[in-house]
Amino acid sequence: MSQERLIEIETGILSENDRHAQINRRRLADLGAYAVNLVSSPGSGKTTLLCATIRAMTGPVAVIEGDQQTTNDADRIRETGAPACQVNTGKGCHLDGHMVGHALDHLGIGQDTTLFIENVGNLVCPAAFDLGEDAKVAILSVTEGEDKPLKYPDMFTAARLALLNKVDLAPHCDVDLDLYEANLRRVNPGIEIIRTSARTGEGLEAWIGWLASEAAAKRRKTAAE
Amino acid sequence: MSQERLIEIETGILSENDRHAQINRRRLADLGAYAVNLVSSPGSGKTTLLCATIRAMTGPVAVIEGDQQTTNDADRIRETGAPACQVNTGKGCHLDGHMVGHALDHLGIGQDTTLFIENVGNLVCPAAFDLGEDAKVAILSVTEGEDKPLKYPDMFTAARLALLNKVDLAPHCDVDLDLYEANLRRVNPGIEIIRTSARTGEGLEAWIGWLASEAAAKRRKTAAE
Repeated sequence: MSQERLIEIETGILSENDRHAQINRRRLADLGAYAVNLVSSPGSGKTTLLCATIRAMTGPVAVIEGDQQTTNDADRIRETGAPACQVNTGKGCHLDGHMVGHALDHLGIGQDTTLFIENVGNLVCPAAFDLGEDAKVAILSVTEGEDKPLKYPDMFTAARLALLNKVDLAPHCDVDLDLYEANLRRVNPGIEIIRTSARTGEGLEAWIGWLASEAAAKRRKTAAE
Repeated sequence: MSQERLIEIETGILSENDRHAQINRRRLADLGAYAVNLVSSPGSGKTTLLCATIRAMTGPVAVIEGDQQTTNDADRIRETGAPACQVNTGKGCHLDGHMVGHALDHLGIGQDTTLFIENVGNLVCPAAFDLGEDAKVAILSVTEGEDKPLKYPDMFTAARLALLNKVDLAPHCDVDLDLYEANLRRVNPGIEIIRTSARTGEGLEAWIGWLASEAAAKRRKTAAE
């Protein structure tokens, strides 16, 4: 197959995805909800951090869980009392706008709901797929090493916020957290960074504060339109 | 685009990849080399483990390094004295047979060379792409959590050996190594498992022994043909 034909196909897939993403974005705005797309490597601690986040939050939340297989993560989220919808992608490597649209039908999303979309663990493919979220949030485990932002730049360019997670493990790893942050800013000078640990609770308040502040900014913007 | 058309396109891409992979496999067999395709999440410690492995090995080795961006990993490999060729995939999420064929042109591979192909850090897409290797070896950091084999089953079904890496961090994580191994065997009953740590050297001898034994088995098989 020619390179031109491959590019044409890819463009077609992405533009179809963007159409679904725009429908989701409109729908979430009409409902008065705020949505983040959580992206990371497998095993960065997304679900554990998300459970701790939900337990510490006071407002309404809903969760879409993406994985190739199993309903483990949605089950863990439901234990917190939050509604969760699991999407299994099978051989697929990312959530797309169409899948998220279907998942929205199964969640009671209303005014001031914070919607967390936990993407398939993958630092490459989810970067290209808009889901209709308000912001992408990248979660990195400190155990992954400081060079990850440089090696997977698309994801960190696309993210508004990075959560540098499992900081409780930093003393046991050969990791330089300042260099980690410098590398994030090297690929994305505007990225915000919060150091977090679901184990010790470090950074949870700042992360929940960030969510509240972004949701409030969206409400003001929507009211002004 | 219809689902049928998408499947047709995917089948076309994979069969073209398989053609390149078969050429690589023939070429490596003719040279008398043995090749492993190292697959994992980003940050599982592949390169650090590979550097320690190369330093402890006595025979000839060569390395192909796959990353979206940077030549960091090939630079680290070359510091051990081993020849390395970096392949940057740009927006791509995996190495393919064609890329590996080109990389082979730049490496002095001869009789009894062990070729390590370090794939892009991604637990999904590289599972589908044969590179012409003799075996896929999956590397998992213990920090990623015991559920990873269940959530990304394709990769662990495709792998012959799993290296359960960074075991020195296990006492600092809430991880059950026996459950980790049980989950690996649940998706792939025939998988072999070695617990490793580049930091302490645990498992290095067993891993190098495994490589030597597999390469010897290949030589015997090739001689008998």
